Amino acid sequence: MSADGSPASDQLLQQATAWWSTSIIDIHPGEIVVRGYPIQELIGELSFPQMVWLMLRGEVPSREQAKLLEAALVAAVDHGPQAPSIAISRMAVTCGLPINGAMASAINALDDIHGGAGQQCMELYQSIAQRADAGESEKDAVEPELDRFIAERGKIVPGFGHRFHGIDPRAVKLLDLVRRAQASEIVSGRFARIGTLIEQSLKRRKGRGIPMNIDGATAVIYSELGFAAPLGRGLFVLSRSVGILAHAWEQTQQGGRIKGPMPPKIPFQYTGPPVRRFEPKQTETS
Amino acid sequence: MSADGSPASDQLLQQATAWWSTSIIDIHPGEIVVRGYPIQELIGELSFPQMVWLMLRGEVPSREQAKLLEAALVAAVDHGPQAPSIAISRMAVTCGLPINGAMASAINALDDIHGGAGQQCMELYQSIAQRADAGESEKDAVEPELDRFIAERGKIVPGFGHRFHGIDPRAVKLLDLVRRAQASEIVSGRFARIGTLIEQSLKRRKGRGIPMNIDGATAVIYSELGFAAPLGRGLFVLSRSVGILAHAWEQTQQGGRIKGPMPPKIPFQYTGPPVRRFEPKQTETS
Amino acid sequence: MSADGSPASDQLLQQATAWWSTSIIDIHPGEIVVRGYPIQELIGELSFPQMVWLMLRGEVPSREQAKLLEAALVAAVDHGPQAPSIAISRMAVTCGLPINGAMASAINALDDIHGGAGQQCMELYQSIAQRADAGESEKDAVEPELDRFIAERGKIVPGFGHRFHGIDPRAVKLLDLVRRAQASEIVSGRFARIGTLIEQSLKRRKGRGIPMNIDGATAVIYSELGFAAPLGRGLFVLSRSVGILAHAWEQTQQGGRIKGPMPPKIPFQYTGPPVRRFEPKQTETS
Amino acid sequence: MSADGSPASDQLLQQATAWWSTSIIDIHPGEIVVRGYPIQELIGELSFPQMVWLMLRGEVPSREQAKLLEAALVAAVDHGPQAPSIAISRMAVTCGLPINGAMASAINALDDIHGGAGQQCMELYQSIAQRADAGESEKDAVEPELDRFIAERGKIVPGFGHRFHGIDPRAVKLLDLVRRAQASEIVSGRFARIGTLIEQSLKRRKGRGIPMNIDGATAVIYSELGFAAPLGRGLFVLSRSVGILAHAWEQTQQGGRIKGPMPPKIPFQYTGPPVRRFEPKQTETS
Repeated sequence: MSADGSPASDQLLQQATAWWSTSIIDIHPGEIVVRGYPIQELIGELSFPQMVWLMLRGEVPSREQAKLLEAALVAAVDHGPQAPSIAISRMAVTCGLPINGAMASAINALDDIHGGAGQQCMELYQSIAQRADAGESEKDAVEPELDRFIAERGKIVPGFGHRFHGIDPRAVKLLDLVRRAQASEIVSGRFARIGTLIEQSLKRRKGRGIPMNIDGATAVIYSELGFAAPLGRGLFVLSRSVGILAHAWEQTQQGGRIKGPMPPKIPFQYTGPPVRRFEPKQTETS
Repeated sequence: MSADGSPASDQLLQQATAWWSTSIIDIHPGEIVVRGYPIQELIGELSFPQMVWLMLRGEVPSREQAKLLEAALVAAVDHGPQAPSIAISRMAVTCGLPINGAMASAINALDDIHGGAGQQCMELYQSIAQRADAGESEKDAVEPELDRFIAERGKIVPGFGHRFHGIDPRAVKLLDLVRRAQASEIVSGRFARIGTLIEQSLKRRKGRGIPMNIDGATAVIYSELGFAAPLGRGLFVLSRSVGILAHAWEQTQQGGRIKGPMPPKIPFQYTGPPVRRFEPKQTETS
Repeated sequence: MSADGSPASDQLLQQATAWWSTSIIDIHPGEIVVRGYPIQELIGELSFPQMVWLMLRGEVPSREQAKLLEAALVAAVDHGPQAPSIAISRMAVTCGLPINGAMASAINALDDIHGGAGQQCMELYQSIAQRADAGESEKDAVEPELDRFIAERGKIVPGFGHRFHGIDPRAVKLLDLVRRAQASEIVSGRFARIGTLIEQSLKRRKGRGIPMNIDGATAVIYSELGFAAPLGRGLFVLSRSVGILAHAWEQTQQGGRIKGPMPPKIPFQYTGPPVRRFEPKQTETS
Repeated sequence: MSADGSPASDQLLQQATAWWSTSIIDIHPGEIVVRGYPIQELIGELSFPQMVWLMLRGEVPSREQAKLLEAALVAAVDHGPQAPSIAISRMAVTCGLPINGAMASAINALDDIHGGAGQQCMELYQSIAQRADAGESEKDAVEPELDRFIAERGKIVPGFGHRFHGIDPRAVKLLDLVRRAQASEIVSGRFARIGTLIEQSLKRRKGRGIPMNIDGATAVIYSELGFAAPLGRGLFVLSRSVGILAHAWEQTQQGGRIKGPMPPKIPFQYTGPPVRRFEPKQTETS
């Protein structure tokens, strides 16, 4: 290489620098700046939900907005040791995994079906809101969007109904907080209305109440606060991580080695072929 | 509880046993039976690809079928340290992860875009084959199915073209092996024909060659051998796991702590707001 | 099975129920109870850090305790796109992973080296505190415990020094908050003293300042608040998850497919053997 | 930037290239070279176990060596749906994870306790071999190294005994294959002898037989073939991945949504405090 250096190198180096490009954080020796704010000015001032919001969206929300977000984050932390994500976390620590690893295996399982209901519900709400923006009443917008959603994704409407709870006490409380926030003009109340309209439509369709569950209620809050739908899943992961961590820690203290899903004395059921002999020649093609 | 026990308990216990139900393996003390075969009769007799096949599909393939599967598994083991999965594996061990953990973070990244091309390509091949089964010639079946595929999934047709290689030497060799297997009547050659027809169609559509790549060629082999499309992804994971493991091990020997994507002296680019003061009051709603 | 049911079934069923045993949460239809509290009474009342504490430790902390915990959680959310965990998260979404999957691969990498510093530092602090409990002054307890720690774990003392920052602005601010909390008798200040004593000892040992970093400062706070050392790692994971999520989301918006660690035009370095021919016979043992 | 380019850029760029440095693979357009061999010369020629060996160790083994490795890989593919790793894989697909994600969560759980036995056993064997290299007989080397191992790691000696099987049929068959390989001078038989000596010592120590299990037997084979201990874990992961994949696929076909560890009708046991009222004021420090 020549002592002069090559313009091509300069250019490649610029590409390398631009390859990892972010508007979230800037770092220099002795200096950490989050969304423009020196971090030491945020520590002790911002609540954790405010920091979450700042990181995800670039600006600090008002305390009232953050409190509504906080209520949703608090509501979804856990759903018991038999939720697959929690069970995975507990089994994982008995396999030797440290807490980060147990959390990883568990959080990974918060996928479309186990962790995507809030996001999907936000997509439904927001499609109805968009249709209403285009001129229809919210009420009129519900039916065609709900029809379309069910046609595309199947009859289980995420955010409504629960295989275990009739009325979900978390949803009731969260909706109450939304109403109060609306009264204080923190939020518009639009998505709470849309959620209620869906609930009414489902009742008519099924002939019985399919009340809004925790996913439907957090989807109302996240939509009221202006979050994009994929962040509904992200916020749920942040919230449920608390339960995943707490159960991993409790299991660590309970002990156990290579904990399976059921006590070892309960057998599994074998449904395959009866015992047969393996004849190596059968694998030779003549 | 009464000394007699309750029928309800019996029933629940049956449910528990049936909850983990499998036709793959049966286990009793001193006895492990895989798909009906005592495992000690398989060890030393089955090749690893035969065992993969037996586990996934229930029967032992012929040695010739297994050899074709083996060629595909051998072909896809690695694509260099800058493939994201491999880079993740290497960074992970420098963060303190054991080999299983590094492999997990890496394999997780073999998702739709990085690891799903083979599966998607198999879906395309098989949709063309089904259309041909319904009466059209394979040649006639290609255009409408390719149109539909592109309409639904976008213009990048998985299995064809490579951002790096013009001709993929792995694909060439694998297709050669398929031709030989067809000559020996191990496979029918149908999916190799379909793959070639797609290649020809893409050339006409784009005005330049978009030759079949490794994913397209393994998709031919897996389809010729009768695997379901989702197993295309699974087999790719088994194969690429070898590279992921080898690079994790090499990085372990190279050492390093908390290895980032680029040398620390190459900065990242900050694109966010300039430094600003945080005024706590701005977060109070009056 | 007899209609009477079997006592053995009852017993096995009891074992099954006890297999998933928890003091964290109880659930019945329409009722979710966290550590004894109906969840609807907590939503809107507890801050997120209070909920974290309740879940991990069984009681609700005072607002002041929770605020100190909150400051530590806020401080550690991010360390830039070139931290391996963050880079993994960003690469993962370009491979097709949803947000939960990207977070899983990234959180998994917060292992001993990348995510264990806080926990290890808490272990050091707590070993010094225990020695002091046994009669020595805190000052006298530092040297032998530091010697032992270094002998067992190597010369890098987690929680002190930073390869990038001289003074870590987060640590300065966090320690200031600890001092204020001590003045208000929220915490005893013992672990802040121990941290400072270690800092002084390291300065004497190395002949230059190795100031406390973010991990050392959060370890002070978590120890002051009475958390067990393994929870230091767990709390760090909760905090850093915010950055991991924010970067996953930013990358999603930037787009990109199969993003590697460096721009494709920057090659990697091959250090293996030169190209050689493969002679199949070499693999046959005569 | 000057048009001349800067030498500093050239240097940084060299660093960037060296940052991802590997002796495993070289890639150029149209060319993929594994350990020096053009990959198209390996496809169809190397068995999968030979490729694994080449990737991990740089040279192609003889067919006989590869067959012994293959037997070990075949032996460990599965241990039933109640092994935590397998159960995690099956639960994960019902949460919406694709096969790569289910495999990741499961493989992650093959940590020290669930997946590290082979590696740990290899460490024990190899410490005995080293002591023998230093002059003691293998027989004399066993007792002190076993004492040391138990003192450092606890009384469970990995590779020996099984909570389920008395005699492990896989171990019996694998050791038989080692004996045959020794007769053909493929391996030395040294680690088989060491394994047997440990078995005898454990019988004397415990007063009952603690026969070698699958991990002990694969550790014999991997040590006979010259693999480093950490690769014992890596090879186990490759093998068990087959079972993890097969069960993920079977569960996919069985269906199910958000499958927990036990049927929903079997409750978990709550051991926490009885229901209590939350008094917000209790969280205020006066």
